[in-house]
Amino acid sequence: MNNSKQYNVAVVGVTGAVGQRIIEMLEQIDFPVKQLIPLASKRSVGKTVDFKGESIQIKEALAEQFDDVDIAFFSAGGSVSKQLAPEAVKRGAVVIDNTSAYRMDDEVPLVVPEVNEQDILNHKGIIANPNCSTIQMVAALEPIRQKYGMKRIIVSTYQSVSGSGNQAMEELTHQSQAMLNNEEVFAEVLPVKSEKKHFPIAFNALPQIDVFDENHFTLEEMKMINETKKIMHDYELQVSATCVRLPFYYSHAESVYVEIEDDHISIDQFQGALKEAPGVVLQDDIHNQVYPTPLTAEGKTDVFVGRVRKDLDVSNGFHLWIVSDNLLKGAAWNSVQIAQSYIKLAK
Amino acid sequence: MNNSKQYNVAVVGVTGAVGQRIIEMLEQIDFPVKQLIPLASKRSVGKTVDFKGESIQIKEALAEQFDDVDIAFFSAGGSVSKQLAPEAVKRGAVVIDNTSAYRMDDEVPLVVPEVNEQDILNHKGIIANPNCSTIQMVAALEPIRQKYGMKRIIVSTYQSVSGSGNQAMEELTHQSQAMLNNEEVFAEVLPVKSEKKHFPIAFNALPQIDVFDENHFTLEEMKMINETKKIMHDYELQVSATCVRLPFYYSHAESVYVEIEDDHISIDQFQGALKEAPGVVLQDDIHNQVYPTPLTAEGKTDVFVGRVRKDLDVSNGFHLWIVSDNLLKGAAWNSVQIAQSYIKLAK
Repeated sequence: MNNSKQYNVAVVGVTGAVGQRIIEMLEQIDFPVKQLIPLASKRSVGKTVDFKGESIQIKEALAEQFDDVDIAFFSAGGSVSKQLAPEAVKRGAVVIDNTSAYRMDDEVPLVVPEVNEQDILNHKGIIANPNCSTIQMVAALEPIRQKYGMKRIIVSTYQSVSGSGNQAMEELTHQSQAMLNNEEVFAEVLPVKSEKKHFPIAFNALPQIDVFDENHFTLEEMKMINETKKIMHDYELQVSATCVRLPFYYSHAESVYVEIEDDHISIDQFQGALKEAPGVVLQDDIHNQVYPTPLTAEGKTDVFVGRVRKDLDVSNGFHLWIVSDNLLKGAAWNSVQIAQSYIKLAK
Repeated sequence: MNNSKQYNVAVVGVTGAVGQRIIEMLEQIDFPVKQLIPLASKRSVGKTVDFKGESIQIKEALAEQFDDVDIAFFSAGGSVSKQLAPEAVKRGAVVIDNTSAYRMDDEVPLVVPEVNEQDILNHKGIIANPNCSTIQMVAALEPIRQKYGMKRIIVSTYQSVSGSGNQAMEELTHQSQAMLNNEEVFAEVLPVKSEKKHFPIAFNALPQIDVFDENHFTLEEMKMINETKKIMHDYELQVSATCVRLPFYYSHAESVYVEIEDDHISIDQFQGALKEAPGVVLQDDIHNQVYPTPLTAEGKTDVFVGRVRKDLDVSNGFHLWIVSDNLLKGAAWNSVQIAQSYIKLAK
């Protein structure tokens, strides 16, 4: 990294769950920030964010705020990104977009630095951060794919409410308290705020994340399917997903079945590839009940893998359990990593 | 059913979560009970159970209590079944065992009445009730298998704490309250009471149900694999399972991938087979957000199926979401159904 250069960094959607964590990550790794420009909607103007001991005023996210910005993180929803990301790019900023607005755009690289960092070189101003559930899965599976090839992925997810933002987290708290007190439970946010019906998430499981596609999959499931192929540059790879929202606050977990090319691989070899993988921590010791859980992964930037098993019938089939903090590696940390890679590659 | 005949019915483990519900089910369907004999461990002697407006004293589960028993339900753990079920059989009772003690015994039929009711005819005194997570899966999949053949099942479960009994339910309540109050959280029951380590289940997910086998699968996972083959009488069927405990009280949910023999089946045909299936209710309307959840299945005896999708790559692959109350169809209701089938077939 060019140690001398410093950057003007804008964070759009700074009051949201992801925006807050982008600020924390920038501070934690001492990212070379010359000036931090926290941006949000009009109603947050007047509030402040704390960054490196300074209290910085939040400004309204308007095109002219990007005039002197070098790097702009966007996590204020797809419509804001669609409207303002091109304005930021026009003014010379590189945009790292954490929404789904540009992910499947052929002109936009979709990046998990451990997997396809070099794709950043093709950017035309916007670099997209993948969906949270996709990031942790490809980070864990790419080292396997590189070493042993990969034909097929079938994933069932166990996703926390923070993936739906701060309101969903508050809803889980209110509903949990109400149910424990035998009071009436109200649902207004989950499974999808804009949908007609809402269901309780407290002490429940909702097999709907995002709205439904005509093919009966949800858009969350289609994101995992399409983004995985794009990030891995492998459109022959068979991917299928079932996405489920669950009553915990942070981290997504995934039960993953993969079929690799090589059909003579042992559990030890499979685990070995994971042990060497950047950003991946193997937590897999059945004799000592060692495996990752949402609570143990919370607040950490790594992707944790456990429960590695060889399928009992299919010689090239493996099962594994992948857990990571969806707001960190699944969002804020991966975005900041993209910024680091961008700086490194721009040297 | 022989309407005139009435039966002396013992329930062993009557104070447990399943035992309580066996009593409720017997009452609810007006099972032909001449005398109810509620049995439990010594420390419950003196307590009573309510049955059809009567308050009946609980007696200690000892061999001599089975002297006049016709049907004995066992749900007091494997060791009690191993010790006392043969005593009950010796005294002329037929045992319907809800533990894992005899399930894989070649001499013992393992029965889900909608799937393999006729197996009851081979009993030698003991009929086994399968594991909760197995029952709801085979009830939903057998009609598909009958109609379209079946090659392969890959399941990831979302299992409630009541599968671990009343103590696990209390633990979820205490931990949830503690976490909401920012108090210290204690774990003493889950994932497995007898294991060395215990982890919080509140606002978490534990990828361990029962202890580990040397093949890295848990015994819960192996139950689903082995029991499914035995119930379906199909040892060529490929089955794999990942079992996860989650913070809700009742119902298990399952994300299931199946490969059928026939590769020209539409979603409509697949749903059609489920609509006709006994004990199965299709809740699958994506345009109106209709799908089963643990809370909506709670207290109901049916198996609910939704989220039916055709795999996007594999023409004979389907995904579905199966939910049922683990204490009812997964335990008490299936046991009472076995008793009904036994009476019907004994005519």
